[in-house]
Amino acid sequence: MSENKNFTLAVVPGDGIGPEVTTEALKVLDAVAAQHGVTFERTEYDLGAKRWHATGETLPDAELEEIRKHDAILLGAVGDPSVPSGVLERGLLLKLRFTLDHYVNLRPSKIYPSVGSPLANPGEVDFVVVREGTEGPYVGNGGALRVGTPAEIATEVSVNTAYGVERVVRDAFARAMARPRKKLTLVHKNNVLVHAGHLWKRTVDKVAADFPEITVDYLHVDAATIFLVTDPARFDVIVTDNLFGDIITDLAAAISGGIGLAASGNINPDRTAPSMFEPVHGSAPDIAGQQKADPTAAILSASLLCEHLGLTEAARAIEAAVEADIEERTGVARSTAEIGDAIAKRAAG
Amino acid sequence: MSENKNFTLAVVPGDGIGPEVTTEALKVLDAVAAQHGVTFERTEYDLGAKRWHATGETLPDAELEEIRKHDAILLGAVGDPSVPSGVLERGLLLKLRFTLDHYVNLRPSKIYPSVGSPLANPGEVDFVVVREGTEGPYVGNGGALRVGTPAEIATEVSVNTAYGVERVVRDAFARAMARPRKKLTLVHKNNVLVHAGHLWKRTVDKVAADFPEITVDYLHVDAATIFLVTDPARFDVIVTDNLFGDIITDLAAAISGGIGLAASGNINPDRTAPSMFEPVHGSAPDIAGQQKADPTAAILSASLLCEHLGLTEAARAIEAAVEADIEERTGVARSTAEIGDAIAKRAAG
Ligand SMILES: CC(C)[C@H](C(=O)O)[C@@H](O)C(=O)O
Ligand SMILES: CC(C)[C@H](C(=O)O)[C@@H](O)C(=O)O
Repeated sequence: MSENKNFTLAVVPGDGIGPEVTTEALKVLDAVAAQHGVTFERTEYDLGAKRWHATGETLPDAELEEIRKHDAILLGAVGDPSVPSGVLERGLLLKLRFTLDHYVNLRPSKIYPSVGSPLANPGEVDFVVVREGTEGPYVGNGGALRVGTPAEIATEVSVNTAYGVERVVRDAFARAMARPRKKLTLVHKNNVLVHAGHLWKRTVDKVAADFPEITVDYLHVDAATIFLVTDPARFDVIVTDNLFGDIITDLAAAISGGIGLAASGNINPDRTAPSMFEPVHGSAPDIAGQQKADPTAAILSASLLCEHLGLTEAARAIEAAVEADIEERTGVARSTAEIGDAIAKRAAG
Repeated sequence: MSENKNFTLAVVPGDGIGPEVTTEALKVLDAVAAQHGVTFERTEYDLGAKRWHATGETLPDAELEEIRKHDAILLGAVGDPSVPSGVLERGLLLKLRFTLDHYVNLRPSKIYPSVGSPLANPGEVDFVVVREGTEGPYVGNGGALRVGTPAEIATEVSVNTAYGVERVVRDAFARAMARPRKKLTLVHKNNVLVHAGHLWKRTVDKVAADFPEITVDYLHVDAATIFLVTDPARFDVIVTDNLFGDIITDLAAAISGGIGLAASGNINPDRTAPSMFEPVHGSAPDIAGQQKADPTAAILSASLLCEHLGLTEAARAIEAAVEADIEERTGVARSTAEIGDAIAKRAAG
């Protein structure tokens, strides 16, 4: 390739192990860049616990507007025990996902033979969860009355719209079409949450008519957790709401090699704003700054970033490098940087 | 014991495999009755899919008032694909739980060595989930506008009160006090559902002051699913809201010998109405009427029923019979009635 296309990245290292794993993800991006005729120019945004303690700010609108001008966002992790629970999650992470209309929260799961699984007989696991990212119980639509008194009442409202559900369901069907098994499972709880659940179910039934090649089934979220441990190989594409998706993707990560490998993309498929890529894991403050974190999930998130930018070969190169690295893991501990170096070298190679 | 105390049971066999497993649970109750100086007099209530198809009724108020007069309720399973999702669940099962104020939904999990687990190294698992039963997203407080149009909006409201949260949290602490490890884990999602989550967290912190011997910790529900597959032995008593409790108890059942063994009690600790005992599993219409269902979960629910009625020895006798039966399972298929017979014989001593 002759032209050297430059992509701009907004980088939010965040809290805890976030900065360490982000450093390795960027290292790997640089390693594949030259070879695939691109450069990644980044601007780092100092957001998270330290910033909040210093200034009381989580994500000022002016900074959000700057971030919006980039081609993509790479995020490490958000959250710290020194900050009241919810402040950074709602004020920073969810503000990014909601404002930038990341309605497809994409979370692939795969079992690598050498990594193994806490399951005795996991079978061949390779599925992707399409989690809705801009609605459901995550909308922040709730409140509390008489807080701290015996008469306190607190509500949380799950908001679901035909507009919001249909667009993510269509995206999930399209992804299922691109996969060999062509299977889609809707996960919800429509026997209890009948209003939201029936909207999801009717939408899937309607969109299914446009995708006759896709096999469709439905599972209640409670039953889905059972199958995720007894028969995870049954899943191909799962589509689900924001909260159920949060829960089952942590479980999916746990059964497939651990949260150290789970990558995610917060995707705006309409490209009206940059998409954001982040490991599923949290900030793990207990091991922060010690070079103990596994950067693999962040690196795989960088691969999803390449894919989204149309850099399919770079995405594949990173994935292949990770797989090769994983296959050779011996159980000997390596530092965060050592794992990043090893994967970067293979990816460049 | 000289006096022969008579307990009245309202029996709701329900749908699918419900009637089959209920028959075996009653068989086992009869087997222990004489020996422990009691009788169980039952009235059967014809509720569920068949009734709904015939009359359009789910649970008429007059029948609910009759059921209310009993000492306890034994329920098989509710739900059938021929009935729109939610009709029987909301109109029958949840109506019973809510009207009879079953605010403690008790769900023990145990791994029996001979049954095994889908986990490769489960460790020693013996915990109990105290799931709130009368609030949360289960209240049926939601609705939909412009149904079936592209402008549809559907909401589900989770309602949480200090009154409702504190009483279940106190119950969970009291249960933890009666257990050797004296540990309580709150499971919620207070980094996103901040209003409800903070009410739960503050309540646990407050009640903890009255139980200084209890070790308390907190997990987000997504993280809890990870620990349930990577380190289930860490749990002793879990207290959580209605929806999170629904999800994690199916997962808990799956990792500990399967949904065929998972019992539950819908308990009204104030005894202002009868408590209700039911297997965690559903109606499994695909295997209904074929004597293929494992009645063990229903039988263990009958043991919880005895416990609640103060028949501690009878409860222990049933549990011991189940454990002995489980330990001798060879993998040879037995009919529902054969399993019930074997456990009844052992329980009778
Ligand atoms: C940190 C938290 C707000 C977030 C979520 O609930 O979405 C995380 O658990 C995730 O899955 O990305
Ligand atoms: C059948 C359904 C309404 C019920 C629930 O969601 O509570 C079931 O899943 C359970 O766990 O008892």
